[in-house]
Amino acid sequence: MLGKSLVPEISELIAKRDFNALRDVFSDWYPGELAELLGDIPQDDQAIVFRILPAPLAADTFEYLDLDSQKHLLKALGREEVSGILNEMAPDDRTALLEELPGGAVRQLVELLSPDERKIATNLLGYPEDSVGRLMTPDYVAVRPDMTVGDVFEHIRNFGRETESLNMIYVVDDRGKLIDDIRMHEFLFSTMDKRVSDLMDSNYVHLTVTEDKSQAVEVFRKHARFSLPVVNSEGILLGIVTLDDVLGVVEAQDTEDIHKFGGLEALEYPYSATPLLDMVKKRAGWLIVLFIGEMLTATAMGYFEDEIAKAVVLALFVPLIISSGGNSGSQAATLIIRAMALGEITLKDWWRVMRRELISGALLGVLLGLIGFIRIAAWSAFSNLYGEHWFLIALTVSFSLVGVVTWGTLSGSMLPLVLRRLGFDPATSSAPFVATMVDVTGLLIYFSVGALLLSGTLL
Amino acid sequence: MLGKSLVPEISELIAKRDFNALRDVFSDWYPGELAELLGDIPQDDQAIVFRILPAPLAADTFEYLDLDSQKHLLKALGREEVSGILNEMAPDDRTALLEELPGGAVRQLVELLSPDERKIATNLLGYPEDSVGRLMTPDYVAVRPDMTVGDVFEHIRNFGRETESLNMIYVVDDRGKLIDDIRMHEFLFSTMDKRVSDLMDSNYVHLTVTEDKSQAVEVFRKHARFSLPVVNSEGILLGIVTLDDVLGVVEAQDTEDIHKFGGLEALEYPYSATPLLDMVKKRAGWLIVLFIGEMLTATAMGYFEDEIAKAVVLALFVPLIISSGGNSGSQAATLIIRAMALGEITLKDWWRVMRRELISGALLGVLLGLIGFIRIAAWSAFSNLYGEHWFLIALTVSFSLVGVVTWGTLSGSMLPLVLRRLGFDPATSSAPFVATMVDVTGLLIYFSVGALLLSGTLL
Repeated sequence: MLGKSLVPEISELIAKRDFNALRDVFSDWYPGELAELLGDIPQDDQAIVFRILPAPLAADTFEYLDLDSQKHLLKALGREEVSGILNEMAPDDRTALLEELPGGAVRQLVELLSPDERKIATNLLGYPEDSVGRLMTPDYVAVRPDMTVGDVFEHIRNFGRETESLNMIYVVDDRGKLIDDIRMHEFLFSTMDKRVSDLMDSNYVHLTVTEDKSQAVEVFRKHARFSLPVVNSEGILLGIVTLDDVLGVVEAQDTEDIHKFGGLEALEYPYSATPLLDMVKKRAGWLIVLFIGEMLTATAMGYFEDEIAKAVVLALFVPLIISSGGNSGSQAATLIIRAMALGEITLKDWWRVMRRELISGALLGVLLGLIGFIRIAAWSAFSNLYGEHWFLIALTVSFSLVGVVTWGTLSGSMLPLVLRRLGFDPATSSAPFVATMVDVTGLLIYFSVGALLLSGTLL
Repeated sequence: MLGKSLVPEISELIAKRDFNALRDVFSDWYPGELAELLGDIPQDDQAIVFRILPAPLAADTFEYLDLDSQKHLLKALGREEVSGILNEMAPDDRTALLEELPGGAVRQLVELLSPDERKIATNLLGYPEDSVGRLMTPDYVAVRPDMTVGDVFEHIRNFGRETESLNMIYVVDDRGKLIDDIRMHEFLFSTMDKRVSDLMDSNYVHLTVTEDKSQAVEVFRKHARFSLPVVNSEGILLGIVTLDDVLGVVEAQDTEDIHKFGGLEALEYPYSATPLLDMVKKRAGWLIVLFIGEMLTATAMGYFEDEIAKAVVLALFVPLIISSGGNSGSQAATLIIRAMALGEITLKDWWRVMRRELISGALLGVLLGLIGFIRIAAWSAFSNLYGEHWFLIALTVSFSLVGVVTWGTLSGSMLPLVLRRLGFDPATSSAPFVATMVDVTGLLIYFSVGALLLSGTLL
């Protein structure tokens, strides 16, 4: 990027306090680029750069900064500059910022807003977290059915300057109730004297303000729109949600699923912005649960202590066998969790999934069983590591692998469906969780097969 | 959804061949809803519904169907209907369909296109898979600098009917080279006699046609645009990419990362659409690699066979200890892989990450070590399961846990960075891969600690 290479030059200009030259450098930059450059200079210099930027550019750039830099800048800048930036920010991005700050800071900042902007901010902040209301911006264009196309263009010229997208114009009745959406195209392809009501088809898609953000993603996916109108329970138009904010929701959801799947509580902030102890806490919870669950393996092994004492060779394959079950289980869980998240699989598919996974698991189990058998046979051809009964040991390991991998695949695939059925998040059936579950049962399978095949010889 | 409840009614109308009533039912449906309903009726009935839909609605609905239904419909419908649907489809969605079909079918279908549409299709298909070219649609509005604002609106009326988004108008020179982008707002807020050149600031963002799709995601994220222009290496404007297609790319990338992280090759098609044997193949590869890696545990355990024979009690804790290492490793790998995918961490942060993870790992290890110690002490207070040397065994398990968890966390966090450094995909450092790696080293740590603390007593 062109930004990086300019860092030394810009640092020099800041050191020299050559603000005119700086202003020149930045005049035709994009906010996104400027934000990236700011990430590479010291935080104190960031405040200097912000002071010289024109207010609208400063506000746009501010929106692109990460939360940490935003907080620091709010502290470093004077009341007046902060007020300028906040008032110029897009309402949805401002909500995102205020939402992350402690309550006291939010009150102080909201006081800096102009009365109009304050109304917007407190209004947006009033909606539940994770609701569509928090994503909403009130900058949209709404028209009445009795307006002419000419009136509409006049209205856009007067009130549409802030709108993020002009692709869709919304039609509301006298009470502000949403009654239609009309593509900009329709107005451009129509004569100026036509009425809005002539262009209406009373067929529109909308979101409800209290709906969950994830439902908004579904609606966007289904209707391929760039923005969608948001109404309250009475159908009154409150604002719009734009697709770029939805992109952020999708990424945040996927991050949450990935974190859960990795066996930890989802982090709320980026990795680097999360304090060390918070992060340890998010990880310790699940790690302890899994550890306590895994203690059952020590109990299970305890039951077979006599067998292990008689045939130590059995113990050698314990890690190999239980990890194969865990690996096949985490593969199956991954596939099913992701397919459920994308809506490709629902609960009613459980029987089809179970059949498929049973066959897959058995095939994979036979495959690993064969490899395991060959390995033990090959080692035994050249050494006496596994003793005279190597053939029986190889059989025990192979049969156990078939059983453990089949069982691992089956439990890994069914667990997410069971969790969903019980009302839990399927993503909680993490790779470590499935592995722990399969470890204990894997030991039981292994030692049972061993008892069956080796009694009379080794046992 | 209203669709589901209508399925019986619609099936009845189809059975009665009451096409007029059907046409009425569907007349004011959205393509997305129609596609959802079609998913619930038999594939043969789908073809009947398609025959009665007006061509543009049929084409729009077709775009929302999954690949399987699309293929089936192409077979079931006559040449004329197929040609109608293909010609009406948005070029980017058509490319996505053709890309998935076998070569012979593609040639046949491309022949059904009108000469203009054929040129667009073969042009888009000529770009490498995963390149921006495949996402592109040539339906955009481009104007010349010497046109007046009035000319621009006239031009949009003549050529802009198909455009997905009118938010941005692109300015090209005589050779078709992109020289600016101007927001629709600017035209609406300007007088009709102003020239395009008066509105230009020669500052624009663009994509290159051969760029990777994932880079397009970055640019969209940075500039919060609904669409971006695509140019070739000479800067000639070829088409635009819209944000809704980028949403699909983000989801596909996340799916790929999640699959890799679960320890399998990423599936190309949805779970249900992937043939059973293909799926087994995607899973078998990694499962075998991990299995062979995990065989090292049997070798490692073999080295300690004498120790296990002398102190069978040591074997009891093997699964507990190695799984704790695996779990902490997969937590760390998850965090780092996702943070890298979102650009929150880059290679140059390795030292900071390493320090953080070393501290986190040690803290988590001490925590699990304490719990492990308490568990063994508690059991030993009421039973003789762990014999007279229970205190030394408890110490061995605790110290091993500290070592194994610290090591697991460290390797889990560093492996993705090392892979990226070597030019591989960090997402390949899956939970099972990290677990396998940590299992072998975990055994070495455990038995070494054991040898140190227990020699002279148990060993």
